[in-house]
Amino acid sequence: MEKKKILVLGGGFGGVFAAKALEKLGRGTLEVQLVNNNNYFVFQPLLPEVASSSINAADAVVPLRQLLTNVQVRQAQVMGIDFAKKAVTVMQGARMTPVELRYDELVFALGTGVDLARIPGMADHSLTMKDLTDAHMLRTHVIGCLETADVTTETLVKDQLLTFVVVGAGFSGVETAAETRELIRRALPYYRNIKPEEIRMYLIEYAPRILPTFPGDLAAYATKQLEKNGIHVLTGIGTKSATSTGVELTNGRIINSSTVVATIGNGPHPLVQQLGLDLHWGRIKTDRYMRVPGHDHVWALGDAALIPLVDNPQEDPADYATQTAQFAVREGYQLAQNIVAKFKGQELKYFAYTSKGSLASLGMSKAVADVYGVKLSGLLAWLLWRGFYLSFLPGFAAKFRVGVNWILNSIMPPNIVQLRMPPPATRYIHFWKGDKVFEPGMLIDGFYTVINGSFKLTIDNPETGEHFEKVFGPGEHFGERVLIKSELRTGLVEALEDGLLLFIAQKDFTRFARAFPFLDQYFKEYIEKTFGGPDKAFAPGNVAAQQPELEKTP
Amino acid sequence: MEKKKILVLGGGFGGVFAAKALEKLGRGTLEVQLVNNNNYFVFQPLLPEVASSSINAADAVVPLRQLLTNVQVRQAQVMGIDFAKKAVTVMQGARMTPVELRYDELVFALGTGVDLARIPGMADHSLTMKDLTDAHMLRTHVIGCLETADVTTETLVKDQLLTFVVVGAGFSGVETAAETRELIRRALPYYRNIKPEEIRMYLIEYAPRILPTFPGDLAAYATKQLEKNGIHVLTGIGTKSATSTGVELTNGRIINSSTVVATIGNGPHPLVQQLGLDLHWGRIKTDRYMRVPGHDHVWALGDAALIPLVDNPQEDPADYATQTAQFAVREGYQLAQNIVAKFKGQELKYFAYTSKGSLASLGMSKAVADVYGVKLSGLLAWLLWRGFYLSFLPGFAAKFRVGVNWILNSIMPPNIVQLRMPPPATRYIHFWKGDKVFEPGMLIDGFYTVINGSFKLTIDNPETGEHFEKVFGPGEHFGERVLIKSELRTGLVEALEDGLLLFIAQKDFTRFARAFPFLDQYFKEYIEKTFGGPDKAFAPGNVAAQQPELEKTP
Repeated sequence: MEKKKILVLGGGFGGVFAAKALEKLGRGTLEVQLVNNNNYFVFQPLLPEVASSSINAADAVVPLRQLLTNVQVRQAQVMGIDFAKKAVTVMQGARMTPVELRYDELVFALGTGVDLARIPGMADHSLTMKDLTDAHMLRTHVIGCLETADVTTETLVKDQLLTFVVVGAGFSGVETAAETRELIRRALPYYRNIKPEEIRMYLIEYAPRILPTFPGDLAAYATKQLEKNGIHVLTGIGTKSATSTGVELTNGRIINSSTVVATIGNGPHPLVQQLGLDLHWGRIKTDRYMRVPGHDHVWALGDAALIPLVDNPQEDPADYATQTAQFAVREGYQLAQNIVAKFKGQELKYFAYTSKGSLASLGMSKAVADVYGVKLSGLLAWLLWRGFYLSFLPGFAAKFRVGVNWILNSIMPPNIVQLRMPPPATRYIHFWKGDKVFEPGMLIDGFYTVINGSFKLTIDNPETGEHFEKVFGPGEHFGERVLIKSELRTGLVEALEDGLLLFIAQKDFTRFARAFPFLDQYFKEYIEKTFGGPDKAFAPGNVAAQQPELEKTP
Repeated sequence: MEKKKILVLGGGFGGVFAAKALEKLGRGTLEVQLVNNNNYFVFQPLLPEVASSSINAADAVVPLRQLLTNVQVRQAQVMGIDFAKKAVTVMQGARMTPVELRYDELVFALGTGVDLARIPGMADHSLTMKDLTDAHMLRTHVIGCLETADVTTETLVKDQLLTFVVVGAGFSGVETAAETRELIRRALPYYRNIKPEEIRMYLIEYAPRILPTFPGDLAAYATKQLEKNGIHVLTGIGTKSATSTGVELTNGRIINSSTVVATIGNGPHPLVQQLGLDLHWGRIKTDRYMRVPGHDHVWALGDAALIPLVDNPQEDPADYATQTAQFAVREGYQLAQNIVAKFKGQELKYFAYTSKGSLASLGMSKAVADVYGVKLSGLLAWLLWRGFYLSFLPGFAAKFRVGVNWILNSIMPPNIVQLRMPPPATRYIHFWKGDKVFEPGMLIDGFYTVINGSFKLTIDNPETGEHFEKVFGPGEHFGERVLIKSELRTGLVEALEDGLLLFIAQKDFTRFARAFPFLDQYFKEYIEKTFGGPDKAFAPGNVAAQQPELEKTP
């Protein structure tokens, strides 16, 4: 008999535990393949620990191939599903080559996406905490803020660099705030020019209290503990907008900050919206067996799925499986059993599970726990937290590495190495009225196009008394002199109203403009017309002569 | 008495050991500041171990602030030096703000740069092994090759993915090849569709033998050992050109490979060339005290400096200090003593040092060593290698972490987690005559402009029988239909002669073209004129409908 092909999309808790159980239960009869964007499984609960350097980035994840030794693991991106043909198109490799994968049964476990579109500027100016790269970037960003704050002489810049905002106070928000605060506290002795009282951290929650899934008294304890650690907890307040310099709250207050972490805004996975499936709350509706109605060979589980726990579910989240790792793991087992039962012609079983409880770390060796109805807080809860996650972490190697690193980290100086990633070549930057885009003396870093709003450029040459002013609206641009020479900014650009710019980094912009004669010509004419030619330097001093050479076209 | 300001530029072996000694010898009288691009010191000899996952990226480096607790460490980029004013301009922070730093004595320790310009395509298509990011990228790249090779069905693609080329067989080249080979060997059991005999690795050296600084018999042993490990050692052969699909050797042979690591091409640091200093072999000439002639308060050491060991040095490298960590460390001590002696009006001392020997790891627990004239090879040399570098690694925390990770790594499954970095938005891609740029069915990934050469686009629609052909020369472009929809390539583009393209990733290109009305208009007209309008799809099938949505302008 030919083996049945089971295709699992997604390598989170739901996908991995389903694939593992399918492989075990169906050995010899099933051919299990799992497709995931990364070649590793992310142990999400440990991401805040990565952000704080408590553990190494590689230790919060487990290579899927080592976790699923008898499953074909494919690192690829899911592009589309043809339900009629029972085929999934994925793109794989550096060149993104399409491959069609056939299935007999399809398991959808792609989790959720992030949707921050409701808060202007938030998507472009906040860090998130969904995957390993996010945790790594947050850590790198925080250490970068300390590095610059230690050597800057500008008070306003220093204030902004030393103010940290975490939006959303569920598990992820609370643990991220607590762990980041701990990293900063431990790192500070190495930054001689930063005083501990200069650090400000805010945890902002729209609901009336933090940790909504916890009993009220544990949440109150957690709030007290976080405040004690120097984290200002603001509840009943939302965020209205964000820019590169801070966030605006719903009560009108503006917090100037270089670091905004958004742990809010769970949205559907981008692919889900295109599949024509029945969605509710952005999740794929399934029956109690985790089958997707209307599609005979499609199953869904984990955060992506809306699995009813009762026969006639109402508009009450309690009627559905919750979006936690605990549930996803149990769903994975049950789904595997149901698929095997289906092939054997046996009866399928309802998914049923009751949460065993919740745990949240608060930093400083404190936590809150609500386990089997028993409420714990403080050091004991924290030890339980560590023990639980260590035991839950799949694979002996991962457990061992995390355990060793926890011990190492507690006795060693904190790891403040900043492994930087190159910033993206293009980015949208939001401004509030009056914000400065750049000032004279800054290094020319790129080219700006106005998407909306209006921006005013002012150039004053104190030596010659020359004065130049120009206002730019949508579709207009500034900073094109980067094409002529790499020098310092001579002008000041300010937002005349709230607005949005598209920034393109110097290197990428000059490469493009030079390779593309049409654009090159356009800018030559524009610079001649607007500034009276490329030699019109407006440049104070002679620092320009010492700037690094512009990249030469090969 | 006011403290004298000593400014050290560069945080490699030379800069760090000079700063450490200056701080110690000059405590109370000197104010030492060190400027470095990264906030960590890179222990270069361990970079190949990072590439092979033997140790974590963070463990091959030490935070400068933890190494130099009484030195002001400034993470910033050196932009220019005004010798007359005794001032250095650096750029710091995310916004690259310029800061002027005054000095009484300046220590130049910025090391060297990489210059691969002599070999067409090499700079754009090879990985290097100079810093931590390089090692991290090599590791990520190698694991990515295994991931794709495991799931591809195309033999040619698989061959290319499983062929690895290391150019240059000095220490860095030999150790990089050996360690990468070891990573692949250990990872392979987890890639079920790759057979060990499908892996090919080449080590290419222009000189008649590898490890030129070692005695001939040790080099011969090393060659035998590397060959035994499955690395083809090609000596007396150079590289002529490189593209994204392989390297061309000086003997005319072409090796198809997705991975080329260049450990050759040491060039001067980019800043050095602009300073008007006396250079020889791209290095700053100093006197025997490490002072830079003609500049009373400037010193140089490490790889950046050419320090004579004799009074009348000839055109013989042996007359100068060699560019190794061993020498740099001794130079740092001596330079610190000389600066302190200068302030005290005491006599300066010549720099004098004789190498204690060399060590090179060959993988598989083998190494070669030539220490105090004693030649060793095999396991004993390898243990000496590990012991020596562990003792040499500055700071107890670093030693402990590396030691623990060496042990962990030897008993645990290899770490095959692929922590990907986003590819750069723009890149130059070289092609040999006949190379394909893309083929029908590939995901549209970006826009191409021809820098030189000529490229032919062919589109055939089997359903309608339509045929379209166009040749593109310098300044012309293709791939602009990415602006209209995100779909699969319908055409084939081939190089009609050797050529160079500038590639711009879809996301960045569409953001720019849409934000910039002038460009938007240009492409609308171009598409109309060239293809007869945006609806002329040339698209086989309906996969396009399932592609992810194009990003919306916020």
